[in-house]
Amino acid sequence: MITRSDVEAAARRVAGHVRRTPVAQIGDISFKLEFLQHGGSFKARGAFNRVLSGEVPAAGVLAASGGNHGLAVAHAAASLGIPAEVYVPENAPAVKVAALHALGAKVVHHGSEYAEAYAQALTRAATSGALFCHAYDQPEVAAGQGTLGLELLEQAGGVDTIVLAVGGGGLLAGVSAAVEGRAQVVGVEPASIPTLHTALAAGGPVDVPVSGVAADSLGARRLGAIAYEVATRTGVRSVLVSDEDIVAARRWVWEHTRLVVEHAAGAAVAALRTGAYRPEPGERVAVVLCGANTNPADLA
Amino acid sequence: MITRSDVEAAARRVAGHVRRTPVAQIGDISFKLEFLQHGGSFKARGAFNRVLSGEVPAAGVLAASGGNHGLAVAHAAASLGIPAEVYVPENAPAVKVAALHALGAKVVHHGSEYAEAYAQALTRAATSGALFCHAYDQPEVAAGQGTLGLELLEQAGGVDTIVLAVGGGGLLAGVSAAVEGRAQVVGVEPASIPTLHTALAAGGPVDVPVSGVAADSLGARRLGAIAYEVATRTGVRSVLVSDEDIVAARRWVWEHTRLVVEHAAGAAVAALRTGAYRPEPGERVAVVLCGANTNPADLA
Repeated sequence: MITRSDVEAAARRVAGHVRRTPVAQIGDISFKLEFLQHGGSFKARGAFNRVLSGEVPAAGVLAASGGNHGLAVAHAAASLGIPAEVYVPENAPAVKVAALHALGAKVVHHGSEYAEAYAQALTRAATSGALFCHAYDQPEVAAGQGTLGLELLEQAGGVDTIVLAVGGGGLLAGVSAAVEGRAQVVGVEPASIPTLHTALAAGGPVDVPVSGVAADSLGARRLGAIAYEVATRTGVRSVLVSDEDIVAARRWVWEHTRLVVEHAAGAAVAALRTGAYRPEPGERVAVVLCGANTNPADLA
Repeated sequence: MITRSDVEAAARRVAGHVRRTPVAQIGDISFKLEFLQHGGSFKARGAFNRVLSGEVPAAGVLAASGGNHGLAVAHAAASLGIPAEVYVPENAPAVKVAALHALGAKVVHHGSEYAEAYAQALTRAATSGALFCHAYDQPEVAAGQGTLGLELLEQAGGVDTIVLAVGGGGLLAGVSAAVEGRAQVVGVEPASIPTLHTALAAGGPVDVPVSGVAADSLGARRLGAIAYEVATRTGVRSVLVSDEDIVAARRWVWEHTRLVVEHAAGAAVAALRTGAYRPEPGERVAVVLCGANTNPADLA
């Protein structure tokens, strides 16, 4: 369980290490331009908070991720001058592996899918003594992501509702804890990966199938325990959007703001574009553009 | 000639019609994210100020431009419910013509190059009575662009130097007038289109050859008279960058900030990346990312 005070402590810890990303007012909506964060997604917040929360062992830090979380941990480690080891599946895209190498991380290929790389990473951390950085379900990681929520409360000149995409729920947990009692959070998921939606219906996190255009960044199999606790405690709203709506929303963002975002961010925008979440008149809404590690070519 | 008070009047006029675009702090540099403006470039500021500065004739407004200025005039006219006619050369790209149509503008093809479309637009304005909106060399247009400079003074927490790209010089003139005595302006041009550089050397605007990667938005043949007057009065710095440096800077921006910008914006960034402009230690520098009407595919 995490609370606002955990997020406030995280904000003090990561200050100067993460970027305070700006907000753009486009029509009635405040867009939090979080893809401007180091590594191209919000994940640097959680990575820095995890690494700065205690002594880092000589073996450094360790993560399992071929995506945004891996980049964030590699960036935080490089920035702090400590070694990083990142486990990825054998089939991890070469471009992502190259980005990890460019940040100085040791990349270890293991297994045919993420779950195998993850299991091997845990085994390795237990033997090497490296600090394991979970992609979402660790208190320090979730609290770090929540610093985005504290910023939004200060920046947007008042916000009633924060709309964000949900995968494993690290961002959801952190932001919901950060703004508890001050703003509501709407968690948006592709209908093809409904970790939050299913957890709320089932009374706890359960495995769901993973597929669709946003699976590269929202492809967790189940909601984290921390996210479930915070989501139920704070009364998070859950909405689903289709892959078609995500693709259309991502294109709408490019055509109307000249921003290129990844499909996860498109999902959050889609919730408003489709009316899956419909604000009341006068409701002040902020949408988190959480990442832009995407190929811009299909927006040509 | 325009002064800060013209820009302040423009700011009152365009308030609520143009977006107040945010600033992102990336390392030591403040990036003004002006491509988030309506129409994808700063040009909406000047277009709205021109149109709102007096009575609009029944014939509406008229411009010659197949690019950012044409889009901005069409947007302003649509937003204010007045007719717009935009002259473009016969070979204007279909995608730009489609964008003008989508904004409700009447598009007139004339001549094999921009100069012919421009001459015909002037003739047409004289007979129809429509309000002609010049792309840069009208006081209302230049003063409107300058509102970006007023915003920057408020936003960046103090700025010593504003780095921006120069074509015909509307943005240069407006921003230089806006910040006169408070910040210096560095005008950056592709070496292949040195309108400002040549004008300063020659003692007045003269025609230059036009070529290179940024010609679509910085392709004016000569600096405007207003820009020359303000630039010499306020002591603007002029620097040149190569096409190779512009392309590399645009790619650097994508790789380090996940922003897609057009080559004109890349030119401004290139001045810092190459050391063509070298800030003093502690100098607070803002770079204007002036537009993003570009094909993102080559950043894939």
